[in-house]
Amino acid sequence: MTDTASLRLDEAYDLSVAVLTTSGFSADHARAIAKVICAGQRDECYSHGLYRLLGCVRTIKTGKVNGIAVPEVFDHAPGIVRVDAKGGYSLLAFELGRGMLIDKARKSGIAALAINHCYHFSALWPEVEALADDGVVAMAMTPSHNWVAPFGGSKPVFGTNPLAFAWPRPDGHPFVFDFATSTVARGEIELHRRAGKPIPLGWAVDADGTPTNDTDKALAGAMTVFGGHKGSALSTMIELMAGPLIGDLSSIESNAYDNGAGAAPYHGELLLAFDPTAFTGADARQHAQRAELIFDAIIDQGARLPSQRRYAARARSLSAGTVQIPATLLAEIRDLLKP
Amino acid sequence: MTDTASLRLDEAYDLSVAVLTTSGFSADHARAIAKVICAGQRDECYSHGLYRLLGCVRTIKTGKVNGIAVPEVFDHAPGIVRVDAKGGYSLLAFELGRGMLIDKARKSGIAALAINHCYHFSALWPEVEALADDGVVAMAMTPSHNWVAPFGGSKPVFGTNPLAFAWPRPDGHPFVFDFATSTVARGEIELHRRAGKPIPLGWAVDADGTPTNDTDKALAGAMTVFGGHKGSALSTMIELMAGPLIGDLSSIESNAYDNGAGAAPYHGELLLAFDPTAFTGADARQHAQRAELIFDAIIDQGARLPSQRRYAARARSLSAGTVQIPATLLAEIRDLLKP
Repeated sequence: MTDTASLRLDEAYDLSVAVLTTSGFSADHARAIAKVICAGQRDECYSHGLYRLLGCVRTIKTGKVNGIAVPEVFDHAPGIVRVDAKGGYSLLAFELGRGMLIDKARKSGIAALAINHCYHFSALWPEVEALADDGVVAMAMTPSHNWVAPFGGSKPVFGTNPLAFAWPRPDGHPFVFDFATSTVARGEIELHRRAGKPIPLGWAVDADGTPTNDTDKALAGAMTVFGGHKGSALSTMIELMAGPLIGDLSSIESNAYDNGAGAAPYHGELLLAFDPTAFTGADARQHAQRAELIFDAIIDQGARLPSQRRYAARARSLSAGTVQIPATLLAEIRDLLKP
Repeated sequence: MTDTASLRLDEAYDLSVAVLTTSGFSADHARAIAKVICAGQRDECYSHGLYRLLGCVRTIKTGKVNGIAVPEVFDHAPGIVRVDAKGGYSLLAFELGRGMLIDKARKSGIAALAINHCYHFSALWPEVEALADDGVVAMAMTPSHNWVAPFGGSKPVFGTNPLAFAWPRPDGHPFVFDFATSTVARGEIELHRRAGKPIPLGWAVDADGTPTNDTDKALAGAMTVFGGHKGSALSTMIELMAGPLIGDLSSIESNAYDNGAGAAPYHGELLLAFDPTAFTGADARQHAQRAELIFDAIIDQGARLPSQRRYAARARSLSAGTVQIPATLLAEIRDLLKP
């Protein structure tokens, strides 16, 4: 049994910022990272929660990520914002490029934010949710390291290549999904390894291409794609769009660049924003109400919207004012504060 | 056993145009539809091939589709082209809007083509492939009728909601995929019904939500989504983007509008175009070569690119100069020429 500790939301945030600045991140980077990690813990997305502090510190210790990089924003084309993250984590780059993305989407109807030269570890839902809070429909995608085999193969080509989407809703939280195109997120396998638990067959194959429930063999082999050939096609699309299209590394290239250092993947990220008002003018409100009929038809038959469980967790955490965390993980994180 | 007939490519096209004009379509619509239907037959995508002529004629006989509609193109925003299909089929609307979409993508980097008020029956790959032939990366999506249950439910909410994508390749055919977000395309179930064959369990549930291999019960019940909750999320995205975002009907609304007439779905379609040169300038060629490394890594391990089988079929058909078609279907189609 694992003992669970409770941290106030502000304690979790302050601890995260302290760990990150102690390990060499600038205050701006530390705040951007802590905000997203704590949102993950708050929403009970533990594989993208405080646990990720370990990876951030490990990555900066490899000397790979630039903890004090100042991202540069470029007005690249009428529909394109580019942010050069200059070897820092992606999150500050997103924050700095977000305003121009929204402006361009409002003017043109549709716009892209291409983040280049960034390290990446974070869930994408905090970003698309932030964009939806500004009233635009948003999509986000990234490659990672080549951990995932294409359908019909057994050698890793794709990253876990997440796709995230957000749709602003008139009353309350946006409709949001964020899924890995691998059968499960890599963090799930890592959490099983930490807990000493086997993984279900079907998540991964070993280096010889044989299905395995051994976490070490899985991590040394290849993860599977979700949804067969369709998931494989979608993962290829993400690899191309958030890689060569924006002039950044593929998952294969990111892994080669890492060269065994064990740092977070280094590549690009692509976000798209669509302004409903640019598409349908004053009628956008009425069409937003029509979208609610789709959500109602899903919920009314007992099926779930993808963000429902996370929003319920958020409500619990905000009401309690706390997040829960395994005591051993908390101790490990606090150890990172020691000089 | 079904006898198979052979038709020259030009015979197939001329027959299609003749059937369509005889049944009341204008020459412009007939040519746009025949081109796409014959491309399907040529590529051995039989569920989107000449068989679809039956549906086109059935739909115009319901009085629903406007066979002589003249689509109107609007320069709606710097990043948005809108085409009002005025109750005609989508294909002519696409042809008329395509040029402005490419122009806008080149100027802005990214652009959207929203087709409104169209009937829709066709595969999306011919459209994204045409855009890729013009050098842009393309995405397309549409709802249909609500035939598909969300993951965790058993009542139909979504259309078969296809997603198509094309990536131009320096030497040869673009990388293209086009998949239904249902487990299989609806046409597959209809072809099984025509052939009197049961469908595999897992494709659909009956009206009570029980998995069925009976085609009639499946068509009266609900089809399943591919890829579990992830496929369900993706289908919701398509429903929203190609529906309320562009001010057009959802799959539920399209079915309600049909009101049992059995016409093709009536709704909108959303296409997106991304210009690689706008994203990375003169380096776009070099990045296109990097994309080839991803394709090589897939093919070299014996896995398949999604368009590979279709291109092989195309090469066979073009080399023979003919398409194959069941003799009974050909007879049924020729019957449509009778007054």
